[in-house]
Amino acid sequence: MAAPVSYERQNIQSMAGYVPGEQPTDPDVVKLNTNENPYPASPAVARALAAIDVEDLRRYPSPSAQGFRIQAAALHGLSPANILPTNGGDELLRLAITTFANRGDTVGIAEPSYSLYPVLTGIQDCSLVTIPLTADWTLPASFASDLNQANARLAFLVNPHAPTGMLMGVEQLTAIAREFRGVLVVDEAYVDFVDPGTGYDLVPAVRELENILILRTMSKGYSLAGLRFGYGIGAERLLAPMMFKTRDSYNTDYVAQALARAAIEDQAYARDTWRRVREQRAWLSSELADRGLPCLPSQSNFLLCQARDTDHARALYQFLKEHRILVRYFDLDRLRDKLRITVGTPAQDQQLLDCLDSF
Amino acid sequence: MAAPVSYERQNIQSMAGYVPGEQPTDPDVVKLNTNENPYPASPAVARALAAIDVEDLRRYPSPSAQGFRIQAAALHGLSPANILPTNGGDELLRLAITTFANRGDTVGIAEPSYSLYPVLTGIQDCSLVTIPLTADWTLPASFASDLNQANARLAFLVNPHAPTGMLMGVEQLTAIAREFRGVLVVDEAYVDFVDPGTGYDLVPAVRELENILILRTMSKGYSLAGLRFGYGIGAERLLAPMMFKTRDSYNTDYVAQALARAAIEDQAYARDTWRRVREQRAWLSSELADRGLPCLPSQSNFLLCQARDTDHARALYQFLKEHRILVRYFDLDRLRDKLRITVGTPAQDQQLLDCLDSF
Repeated sequence: MAAPVSYERQNIQSMAGYVPGEQPTDPDVVKLNTNENPYPASPAVARALAAIDVEDLRRYPSPSAQGFRIQAAALHGLSPANILPTNGGDELLRLAITTFANRGDTVGIAEPSYSLYPVLTGIQDCSLVTIPLTADWTLPASFASDLNQANARLAFLVNPHAPTGMLMGVEQLTAIAREFRGVLVVDEAYVDFVDPGTGYDLVPAVRELENILILRTMSKGYSLAGLRFGYGIGAERLLAPMMFKTRDSYNTDYVAQALARAAIEDQAYARDTWRRVREQRAWLSSELADRGLPCLPSQSNFLLCQARDTDHARALYQFLKEHRILVRYFDLDRLRDKLRITVGTPAQDQQLLDCLDSF
Repeated sequence: MAAPVSYERQNIQSMAGYVPGEQPTDPDVVKLNTNENPYPASPAVARALAAIDVEDLRRYPSPSAQGFRIQAAALHGLSPANILPTNGGDELLRLAITTFANRGDTVGIAEPSYSLYPVLTGIQDCSLVTIPLTADWTLPASFASDLNQANARLAFLVNPHAPTGMLMGVEQLTAIAREFRGVLVVDEAYVDFVDPGTGYDLVPAVRELENILILRTMSKGYSLAGLRFGYGIGAERLLAPMMFKTRDSYNTDYVAQALARAAIEDQAYARDTWRRVREQRAWLSSELADRGLPCLPSQSNFLLCQARDTDHARALYQFLKEHRILVRYFDLDRLRDKLRITVGTPAQDQQLLDCLDSF
C-alpha cells in the first residue's frame, strides 16, 4: 500500500497551530484567563438582540457592515472609509498579512507578544523577525531601524502590551511609523482600559500616517467576545485593498453588526465598566503585591504578576485551577515565572486572593 | 513631493475584487438575485435566538463550534472530526486555498462557475486553469486529466452547478476525485434543493476518498444567509490542518453556532421549505418557458433562463429592476444572453411573471 498522501502545503505541515486559552463550559469556574470584561454588555445591546427576528437573517447582511462603519466613524471623528469591520480582531491581523506581505517577505514583532502573530506569519509562509523587549519591557530605541534592516513589510505591536499591560506613548509609536518603511499594525485590543488621564489617543495619527493600522475589538471593552466583531482604523488608501479585495465578501453577520453598533452607541455604559475595571485593577495589583506577587504597571484589564520562580508560578497555576480558578500561564521565555491574571469583579478577585492565601 | 507609496502586495494591487450581488435595504424590493430561501428559518431557530442573553456573549465562544459539530456529524452519519464549521461557506473556500495551494501553484475551475473562485485564487497569487464546460453545460470527460496535466493542487466544482442549476452525479464526481492528484472541493451550497428522487448523496464518499472536501452552508437551505455559517465535510486528515492551523481560532460566533445547530436539528421544517421551493421551481420554469424564456433543468433554488439575445437579457434585467424586481445578470461569456432568477414564493414569482408580461 502506498504511503498516504498529504495535501497540505509544506509550511502548514511543519508549523504548529495557535492554542487559544481554555474555554471551560462549567459556568462556576472563575475565569481569569482570557481577558474578558467581567461585566455584561450594555442593556442597549440586549435590546438590539431582542429586536432581531429570524426573518432578518434570511437575507445576506450588509457586505460592508455600513451601519456600524458610520457609527464608528462618528465616534472616532473620521469617515466611514477609515473603518474596516472584521470578524473579530483576529481577522484584521490575518488580513494585514494577506494584503501586505508576500510569501517569503519579512514580518516583524516584538518579543514577547501575542502568540498569534507568529502563527499567522507562518500560514502566509513569511519570515519572522523578532525584536526582544528590553530588560524593563520597553521597545529598544532601534526598533524601527531593526525592522528596516530586516526589510520588514509589516510589523505588529500590541498597545497596551500583552502580556505586560504596559502602555507605549503616541509619540513613540508615530516616530516608529515615520521611520518604518512598511505597515505598522498597532493592536489596541485592550485600549479601552487605559486610564483617560494618560491622554493616550493614536487615532488622529491615521490622518497623517498612511502606514498605521489600528486594531480595535468589541471582545474586551464592550463585553462581546462571543460575538466576534472587531475593526481596523486607518487611512482610506491603506484599508481599501482589505475592504474591497482580500476580506471575505460577507465577513461579518447581521447579528454581530447590529449588536456591535448598539454597543459603541452606548459609550456611557461602556465607559463605566472600564472605570470599574481600572479601579479594581489598582486594588488587585496592590493586594497581589502584598502577597509577594508584584505586577507590572498595567493599563489593560489584566496583570502580569511575578512569582518567586518557574516552579512557584506553575504550582500556583495548578493550585488555582484545582480550585476552579483559571489564570493564564505561558511556557515561554521570560514568562515561565509569571502568571497573567484577568481583572475580574470584586467578588471574583477576592476569591482569587483567598485561594492564594490558602496556597 | 514623493509619489505616494503603496503597501499592498503586487498581485493584490493588480487584481479586481469580488462584486457581491446587490443587497437593497428597501424591504419592498422583490429580491430574486442572490438565491436566498424565500421562507424564514424554523421556529426552533427563533426560539434559540430568543434564549440568548448578552451575558452569553461576554465570554469567548467554543473555538471549534463543538456543539454544532456533534449535531452535524449525527445528521451525516460521520464523526465530529469530519465536520469543519466556518464563517459562511466562503471561509471554507478561502481556507482550502490557504491550506492546499502555495503561491504560484495551479488551481483548477470549470467555466462558467462561481466568480469568487478566481478572486480567492488571485489573493493567494496562484495560477488559475479554467476548463470550459461543454456545449451542453457538462464537464468534459478529460476534466481530471486536464487538472493533472496542469499540475493543479486544488480544484473547485459547484454541484448543483451555478449558475445553471444542473446536477452532476456521484459516480462522475468520485471518478474525478480518484483520478485527480489534488484536493477536489465540491461546493454543495445548493444541494438541499436537489430532488430526493435523484438519490444524490456525495457524503459517504469522504470515508474512502481523502481528497474530497464538501462545502455546505446554512445560507440557502436553512434560510440563514444573514448568519454567516457554513461547514466542510471531509476526511479527518484533510480537515485537520484547517481545523487546527489555518482557520482563525474563533472563526464562528456564539449566536451563529447556537442558531445553526437549532436549524439543522429541525430537519422536518427545513425539508418542507425545500419541497416547496422544488414545487415552485417546476412551476416557474414552465411559466417562463411559456413566455419564451426556457430554463436549463435546475436542481437548485434558481433558474438560468435564456433570453432571445444579449440586448433582450439586459433590457429584461433593467425593466424588472425599474419595477423593483431584482434578478442576476452576469456580463460573462456564455451568460450575457441569460438571466439567473432565484425561485421565490408563489406571490413573488407571480409578480415576476406579471412584470415580464408587461414588458
